[in-house]
Amino acid sequence: MDFVDSKGARLHMALATIQTDIDEAFDRLLPVPDDTRARLFEAMRYAAIGGGKRVRPLLLCATATMFNVSREAAVLAGAALESIHVYSLIHDDLPCMDDDDMRRGKPTLHKAYDEATAVLAGDALHALAFEILTFEDVSADPFVQAQLTRCLALASGMGGMAGGQAMDMAADSATYDLHTITRLQQLKTGALLTASVEMGAILGRLPHDSRGPLLNYARDIGLAFQIADDLLDHEGDEEKAGKALRKDDEQGKQTFVTLMGADGARSQARALVEQACGHLAHYGEDAGVLCDLARYIVERDR
Amino acid sequence: MDFVDSKGARLHMALATIQTDIDEAFDRLLPVPDDTRARLFEAMRYAAIGGGKRVRPLLLCATATMFNVSREAAVLAGAALESIHVYSLIHDDLPCMDDDDMRRGKPTLHKAYDEATAVLAGDALHALAFEILTFEDVSADPFVQAQLTRCLALASGMGGMAGGQAMDMAADSATYDLHTITRLQQLKTGALLTASVEMGAILGRLPHDSRGPLLNYARDIGLAFQIADDLLDHEGDEEKAGKALRKDDEQGKQTFVTLMGADGARSQARALVEQACGHLAHYGEDAGVLCDLARYIVERDR
Repeated sequence: MDFVDSKGARLHMALATIQTDIDEAFDRLLPVPDDTRARLFEAMRYAAIGGGKRVRPLLLCATATMFNVSREAAVLAGAALESIHVYSLIHDDLPCMDDDDMRRGKPTLHKAYDEATAVLAGDALHALAFEILTFEDVSADPFVQAQLTRCLALASGMGGMAGGQAMDMAADSATYDLHTITRLQQLKTGALLTASVEMGAILGRLPHDSRGPLLNYARDIGLAFQIADDLLDHEGDEEKAGKALRKDDEQGKQTFVTLMGADGARSQARALVEQACGHLAHYGEDAGVLCDLARYIVERDR
Repeated sequence: MDFVDSKGARLHMALATIQTDIDEAFDRLLPVPDDTRARLFEAMRYAAIGGGKRVRPLLLCATATMFNVSREAAVLAGAALESIHVYSLIHDDLPCMDDDDMRRGKPTLHKAYDEATAVLAGDALHALAFEILTFEDVSADPFVQAQLTRCLALASGMGGMAGGQAMDMAADSATYDLHTITRLQQLKTGALLTASVEMGAILGRLPHDSRGPLLNYARDIGLAFQIADDLLDHEGDEEKAGKALRKDDEQGKQTFVTLMGADGARSQARALVEQACGHLAHYGEDAGVLCDLARYIVERDR
């Protein structure tokens, strides 16, 4: 096995492990109750369990591992992150938003259940995320719990994910230039990816002023991730992606691909990944999974 | 001014003050940005500022005052509570949920803006609530921040408000008996009202095992509040209420009024209020506003 293959195997193993761990965490967090809330819990399980790449929990766990955080704590905090990500996918897929029928290779939640259940299941997953962050098993230290809460609330709210979604929905978004698209994506997807890395650092009790290289890494891969998403939408395989593609083109939306061309976007994504890994040079092999994950992010087909 | 009038004046003043304070807090929390997120922020302001009774923030502030918490901290925590309450109203009013056109005397958010903005503004207010709870101005003690976060997440999620909403939406909710309706309402509205009182106690650093009387008070007024809501829906004035009434009757839903009759429900609500105030006898005049508020809750016309 040569070096490239062993790195591929390391990432493959890390992804398979986090996918199992997050599925198991949601299975324990969402026991279906013996009352008429059952349908809500089943809907939450339908959306949260199975199928996701779990990039955000892996970012958190791979960072936390560098600072000797227990696997159990990192996986639970990762489930909180993924709970926010899944709620945002459920609400984004609604008929009044992107009106998508397929997600992670199966019908979207409002198709499999109904719109009201989809709105409510998203809201319940949103609350679950913040509940998880106050578990003793995440941290017995309230200072860590409060920092995690603040980090996740800022990344998901009006100054992060929700704010980016608002920019994306704005009537004039079809006219955005590269600077504005970059800012939009830094909020819409970048903020939560950055929070994934920062929450790993918080769990690892890394002081604020030592987090710079990790946050620079996260900023660069966040942008690379979105460029790769735009490329996937432009030229990917719907069956592999598990969702409808070519939507940006149909809607005449500005993306990194329309603004830079497919080749320009691809080389920009690859340059960002190399730059991202460069920020972690100081950590050497300890940051191996984070670097592998950065490369996977731009080469993935789903 | 006799005793009854002075009590009425005291509550009137407390309500007017909290309404101003919460409006001012949201005005500071939601400055409209100079970018295309402006519409999202304007929608959040439309829903959050003006018109609400602010019962939950008043419960929190009146409790916190008993334990010498600063007004600023209590108002901010109250704004977090109200942020959760407002997001739940926005989502409940959506066409796929209750499909309501009027709320607090003006068009519902999806009528004044659009459905996508309403979903997103609700989500952003949801995140804002948890962001607020980690402000230094709420508490400089992370232990208090983490306890507040846990209390609010539990009260609003699948084991509280969202769970109660799921029970309400269940296909067989038209057949519920009094026991099941009570359980449903304890989750759907009771949990957040109880959290309002408990968050005041947390801010006041009241130990867990001293919170019993306050939590019993909260449980009783929560039930009284919902019975009063059912009475209001059954016999209230739509103009004063600022929203559509008679919806339960139209939908053939089981409520405290259908199960106990209007007179039975009214006397039950009043008995619960007296029982609630009884729990606070130990606190004497310090609990005056909480008792006044309990009585207002069952006599209000909106």
